Amino acid sequence: MKVLEDKIRTYGRALSDDVLLVDMFLNHQIDCELMREMGAEFARLFRDERVDRVVTVEASGIAPALMTALELRVPLVVLKKSASVINQGALQTEVFSFTKQKSYLLTLKPEYMPAGERVLLIDDFLANGEAALGAARLIEQAGGVVAGIGIVISKNYMPGLQRLRDAGYNVSALAQISAMGQGYVRFVGEEG
Amino acid sequence: MKVLEDKIRTYGRALSDDVLLVDMFLNHQIDCELMREMGAEFARLFRDERVDRVVTVEASGIAPALMTALELRVPLVVLKKSASVINQGALQTEVFSFTKQKSYLLTLKPEYMPAGERVLLIDDFLANGEAALGAARLIEQAGGVVAGIGIVISKNYMPGLQRLRDAGYNVSALAQISAMGQGYVRFVGEEG
Repeated sequence: MKVLEDKIRTYGRALSDDVLLVDMFLNHQIDCELMREMGAEFARLFRDERVDRVVTVEASGIAPALMTALELRVPLVVLKKSASVINQGALQTEVFSFTKQKSYLLTLKPEYMPAGERVLLIDDFLANGEAALGAARLIEQAGGVVAGIGIVISKNYMPGLQRLRDAGYNVSALAQISAMGQGYVRFVGEEG
Repeated sequence: MKVLEDKIRTYGRALSDDVLLVDMFLNHQIDCELMREMGAEFARLFRDERVDRVVTVEASGIAPALMTALELRVPLVVLKKSASVINQGALQTEVFSFTKQKSYLLTLKPEYMPAGERVLLIDDFLANGEAALGAARLIEQAGGVVAGIGIVISKNYMPGLQRLRDAGYNVSALAQISAMGQGYVRFVGEEG
């Protein structure tokens, strides 16, 4: 998605091969019109998947996921991150965050994931794939079907995209980074 | 806002005078069309305030604040909650959460709050007013002007609303609860 790649080129700050700061438009200050365009694009990419429900992970996934769900006219479910086990019948799965070097519990109340529904999972970043695989586990544990996974920014040089595809998921990413390091970002399809 | 009060009556669950579960439509499962209507209503309520920017607090404030900012065609800034002090020039202020009985640090990078801009602060709940007062402090510390505060659900029997008004802020709440206890919610203007 060219408008997103341009934003990343202009306003993103690559601090290392690991850290891309996009807090100017994606997760601290939010460019609302860009969110709307991304939502429309996710809806277009997955329009044949008969999506019943969008699911995302708090907090940075909420804005693009909300615009996608609004465009598709379906409900959104936000998976919560908890530090500790919650009872009350919630489903939980452990996810290791490489960025923060610690685990958290992704949480879903099963009443918000009706069995048999087709789910579009939306998240902001894909790197190792831990969060997306955890979210997919929860959705499936509740009886949902992962109809697609839409990612805002995929670091294709990391294992996440391949892991999700190897697991059989239909994944699309709006911006796909082939290489990154301090001060530079290269997208898939760009010549060195 | 009648549609919101109706949702609370139908799907909200008052567990005590303190806890109102609205995770069926506001903060776990999200009714996207309701978010759009709430954003339009906040934009209408504050349309004479010449708003330059919407600010909210992660995570439950993001959905209504995004729809408000989109309607007003201004950027959104999401204040982050941190457990520890962050350097790198970010502004932070301590907020005590009565719900969780612990403090967190509300965080804002000052480059996303240009001095002199008029800010509409949006949050999901108002009870003691700690989060809203903390957010207002950060905005003002960065040189912004709090042009208005829009709340989704205000517990008017708690001190927050009066504290914000005593501090001189222009506050509107879409649903105003006058009394609540296990199994019942009463709104301002309703007879007992």
